[in-house]
Amino acid sequence: MSAADKQQAREKFQAVFSKISQECLQYLKDNEMPAEAVKWFDDNLQYNTPGGKLNRGMSVVDTYSILKGGKISEEEYERAAILGWCVELLQAYFLVADDMMDGSITRRGQPCWYRQPQIGNIAINDAFMLEAAIYHILKLHFKKDSYYVHLLELFHDVTFKTELGQLVDLITADEEKVDLDKFSLDKHHYIVVYKTAFYSFYLPVALAMFMAGLSDDSLHQNALDVLIPLGEYFQVQDDYLDAFGKPEQIGKIGTDIEDNKCSWCVCIALQLANAEQKKLLDDNYGRKNPDQANRIKTLYAELEIENKFKSYEKEAHDRIVSLIEKVDEKSGMRKEVYYAFLYKVFGRTK
Amino acid sequence: MSAADKQQAREKFQAVFSKISQECLQYLKDNEMPAEAVKWFDDNLQYNTPGGKLNRGMSVVDTYSILKGGKISEEEYERAAILGWCVELLQAYFLVADDMMDGSITRRGQPCWYRQPQIGNIAINDAFMLEAAIYHILKLHFKKDSYYVHLLELFHDVTFKTELGQLVDLITADEEKVDLDKFSLDKHHYIVVYKTAFYSFYLPVALAMFMAGLSDDSLHQNALDVLIPLGEYFQVQDDYLDAFGKPEQIGKIGTDIEDNKCSWCVCIALQLANAEQKKLLDDNYGRKNPDQANRIKTLYAELEIENKFKSYEKEAHDRIVSLIEKVDEKSGMRKEVYYAFLYKVFGRTK
Ligand SMILES: [Mg+2]
Ligand SMILES: [Mg+2]
Ligand SMILES: [Mg+2]
Ligand SMILES: [Mg+2]
Ligand SMILES: [Mg+2]
Ligand SMILES: [Mg+2]
Repeated sequence: MSAADKQQAREKFQAVFSKISQECLQYLKDNEMPAEAVKWFDDNLQYNTPGGKLNRGMSVVDTYSILKGGKISEEEYERAAILGWCVELLQAYFLVADDMMDGSITRRGQPCWYRQPQIGNIAINDAFMLEAAIYHILKLHFKKDSYYVHLLELFHDVTFKTELGQLVDLITADEEKVDLDKFSLDKHHYIVVYKTAFYSFYLPVALAMFMAGLSDDSLHQNALDVLIPLGEYFQVQDDYLDAFGKPEQIGKIGTDIEDNKCSWCVCIALQLANAEQKKLLDDNYGRKNPDQANRIKTLYAELEIENKFKSYEKEAHDRIVSLIEKVDEKSGMRKEVYYAFLYKVFGRTK
Repeated sequence: MSAADKQQAREKFQAVFSKISQECLQYLKDNEMPAEAVKWFDDNLQYNTPGGKLNRGMSVVDTYSILKGGKISEEEYERAAILGWCVELLQAYFLVADDMMDGSITRRGQPCWYRQPQIGNIAINDAFMLEAAIYHILKLHFKKDSYYVHLLELFHDVTFKTELGQLVDLITADEEKVDLDKFSLDKHHYIVVYKTAFYSFYLPVALAMFMAGLSDDSLHQNALDVLIPLGEYFQVQDDYLDAFGKPEQIGKIGTDIEDNKCSWCVCIALQLANAEQKKLLDDNYGRKNPDQANRIKTLYAELEIENKFKSYEKEAHDRIVSLIEKVDEKSGMRKEVYYAFLYKVFGRTK
């Protein structure tokens, strides 16, 4: 897809957000909410929902289109895009709250919502409202569909799982109290699968599958079998690039070491470290001091984390391809759905 | 009901919470969550969900029992109580967040959850998880029932409405920036109806109605017509008691004046005040100083707010009784459902 095509696809998708945000605001007006509160919610929606990469939301449309053999009507496009925006609303709900819990300063190149003047902790209720918008929109557009209750349960369950992952992350990687004994590859696996993979990888595909009439439990289990490892690989790569990617390549300066993140890199380092190297990790990880972060990076080089990543990457890629190859297309599922994700994830440099 | 009967009813209801909290924890264990995270969620559930008056939750059981003519099986009791606990979980979700947004210190005689050691802003995710527990429990126990989707939509809609009320409250009564021009009886009406009445009055009755097979839109509209004014009266009374109730009677010292609350009392005072009295309100309302609060109370006396409340109370009572008397019991709805609420609300002294 050319850059111009991509831009056009993005604009078409964005147009659907205008429609659903109007529908949300209409609900407030129908409930005779004071004008300043309507404006507040509008600002909340606009500030926090679009503006990201929109990969998750747009992949609902892409997946649905593949499942329908490439040709979908304008009406089908709009409905798939609405589901895509529900994924983006769910992400907005998580991110507004995550930034507060992490005490973050910026998000997508602008101040975090809670740091805007006059907002502060009201952002908690604003996050709640972003989530509430999902169910309002689903009811408006999907109430009459046979798979409506599947959509509701899917959002409920993925939301709960993401919150489980967030909880484990929050109590594992406390910025105030560095304790590397809390880190392990098992913990890392749990956090990334729950906090990221379910909502970023499985959710968009599952929504498109329901819309395309694929609601069998076994098909959804197959989708999880492929997409959860893919999501995990995505996050391992993200962790790897945070430590090893060049800033001009990844578009930011990695701070996982300084932020005491339970990154794949530090989990591998902990597995390989001897007593002396473990002490170096304990003494320098999770500190805001750049010299200490550099000591960690030197250790990563000594322990050849980069090579470990290359082998992990090859192993993960081959394992996922063999899972995809097992897909029985007679079921209605298409290998291409997964290859589209695989291509995006393994092809990315940032 | 004697005090001993009340205590027994409460204990029976509490026992159902043990069961559903175990079911929630089992979900975490089935998802192989680390033990310390399971314990964290258990603590969150136990600290924030029981411990209140449980009026909302228990009224689901009471209402269901009235609708079924007074005799219900143990199984029916348990199912109605489970719905009751979902109301209590919803309230817990709101209160954990509300305390953070208000910067409150204590709740139900103990420190607010977010003020417990090690918790802080993690309480945001903890609030999310209390909400997620509702849908997990509903799925476990009601998935096969014809009214399952009604339950889901009811929780979604009441949640959204409560958040609308919370938003208007938050942007109307800013403790940092007192501006009485933002207050009005209309605003007060909106806040109390949305922030309190839907989830405290309509939700428990609506849940019992669905369980009893009463799902007609018109019956639910009738329930709203009675219960929303009743909920509004309840909050006006709460506001009145905050200013005029004796501490030994209401079990706390009212601080609505100091906290810049958009109370019914100040809204009435603003309606009645001349220019000089308006200035006194502007200069003294919403300040932490007890002398200034006393000046407000003196003005309330001058303006005879107490008498205004007595007339409002009488008018509201009679209006609600006449709405109840219009109920057509052939529909399956019972006047007694509403009288039980009316009795509790108009009979209460705290
Ligand atoms: Mg963060
Ligand atoms: Mg975080
Ligand atoms: Mg990262
Ligand atoms: Mg409060
Ligand atoms: Mg509040
Ligand atoms: Mg009060």
